[in-house]
Amino acid sequence: MKFKYRRIPEETIRRLPVYLRGLLFSSQMGHRKISSSELAEFVGVNSCQIRKDLSYFGEFGKRGVGYDIEKLAKEIRNILKLGTVRKAVLVGAGNLGSAVLTYPGFKIYNFAITAAFDADPKKIGKKVRDITIEDVRNIAKLKKRKIDLGIIAVPQADAQKTADELVKAGVKAILNFSPCYITAPKRIKVVTIDIAMDLARLPYYMPVS
Amino acid sequence: MKFKYRRIPEETIRRLPVYLRGLLFSSQMGHRKISSSELAEFVGVNSCQIRKDLSYFGEFGKRGVGYDIEKLAKEIRNILKLGTVRKAVLVGAGNLGSAVLTYPGFKIYNFAITAAFDADPKKIGKKVRDITIEDVRNIAKLKKRKIDLGIIAVPQADAQKTADELVKAGVKAILNFSPCYITAPKRIKVVTIDIAMDLARLPYYMPVS
Repeated sequence: MKFKYRRIPEETIRRLPVYLRGLLFSSQMGHRKISSSELAEFVGVNSCQIRKDLSYFGEFGKRGVGYDIEKLAKEIRNILKLGTVRKAVLVGAGNLGSAVLTYPGFKIYNFAITAAFDADPKKIGKKVRDITIEDVRNIAKLKKRKIDLGIIAVPQADAQKTADELVKAGVKAILNFSPCYITAPKRIKVVTIDIAMDLARLPYYMPVS
Repeated sequence: MKFKYRRIPEETIRRLPVYLRGLLFSSQMGHRKISSSELAEFVGVNSCQIRKDLSYFGEFGKRGVGYDIEKLAKEIRNILKLGTVRKAVLVGAGNLGSAVLTYPGFKIYNFAITAAFDADPKKIGKKVRDITIEDVRNIAKLKKRKIDLGIIAVPQADAQKTADELVKAGVKAILNFSPCYITAPKRIKVVTIDIAMDLARLPYYMPVS
C-alpha cells in the first residue's frame, strides 16, 4: 500500500510501536483478526485514536470486519522503517546494560547490538552473549563500523559525555537509559527512557489505602 | 487548587509523568518558569496537547508568563497521587531486576522497593542495596507486609504465574518488564514496559543509509 507522508504527529509515531506490540501479542495468542476496539482494550489507547493514527497512512481494515493482524503488523513495520537491520552499540555494561544486551525484545524491531563498551577494566574483554566488551576509550574507532544507534546505560554523570562521543562516532539516534536530560545536534533523535516513569501513573489508578 | 474529576483519558494520565519529568529536568537546569511551548520542545509533545491535558485539572500558568515549574510539578504530583510513599516488591533479581533495585529513579515518584524475590538458590539470602533477596516460594507471605505494587522481572515463561501470585499477595498494581502480555483482574492496573519498544520509533527518524 502506498501512502503520502503528511506531517505526522510525534505522538502518533510514539503509539505505532505500541500497536505493533499489541498485534504481535495478539498473534502469539492465536488470533488472526482484531477490531480497533479490541486492539484499544489490549493496548490501553482508545479506538478513535487508533483509527485516527492509522488514517495518516491509508485505509486499513474494514468496518465491522476489523484488521488482519499480520497485514497490519507488516504495514506498521513498513511505516516505522523496521525492514532493515540496524546496528546498535551499547555503552555501559552494568546491570541495566547487561539486561539490554541479553534482552530478547530488540530483535523483534530488527535491532542488532553488535558492540558494547565499558570503563571498568574488570569488564573489558569479557563476553556477554557473543559480544566482547570493549574499552570505552575506543569509542571513536566505532566510526568505521557504521553503527546506527547508540544505547546509553552509564551513570548519570557520564551520560552527556557518552552522548557526545557517540555523536562523533557517527550514530544517527540515541536511546538513553540514564535518568537525565541529554542534548545532541538536531539531526540526532534522542529518546530517553526512565524505567521508573511508567510507575508514576500507577498510583492514580490505585485505591487510597 | 481544587479540581473536579472529569473522565480523564488514559493517554493524559500517561503523559503527566512525562511532563513531570520534563519539569524536574528543567528545574535541575536552574529554570523556574517554563512556557508550554518550551515544555513541549523539551518532552516531545505538542503544546496544545499539554495545555489540553492540564486543562482537565484546572487553570495552570498564565498566558504569556508560562508555568511556575515548582508549582506545576507539585500539582502534577497531587493529581497522580504521588504524595504517599508506596511500597513495591520486585520479583526476579536477574540483570534487569538488579538494575531496577539500584535504579535511582523510583524515589522521585515515591516508590520504595522494600522486598525482592528470586527462584535461584544462589541469589536467595544475598543483599542488593539494603534488601535481602527472598525465596520466591514465600511470595504468599507478603500479604501481611501490605505491598502496593509488584514489579515483574522474571523470564517470560514465568511472568503470568508470578502475576497471579502477586495478585494473591494483595498488590494493587503491577509493573511488568517481561516481554509478554499478562492478565490480571480488572481492579489491578497492569503496565507492561518493553525496554526495546522505544527503539522501534527511532528508524522512522533516521535518514536511509
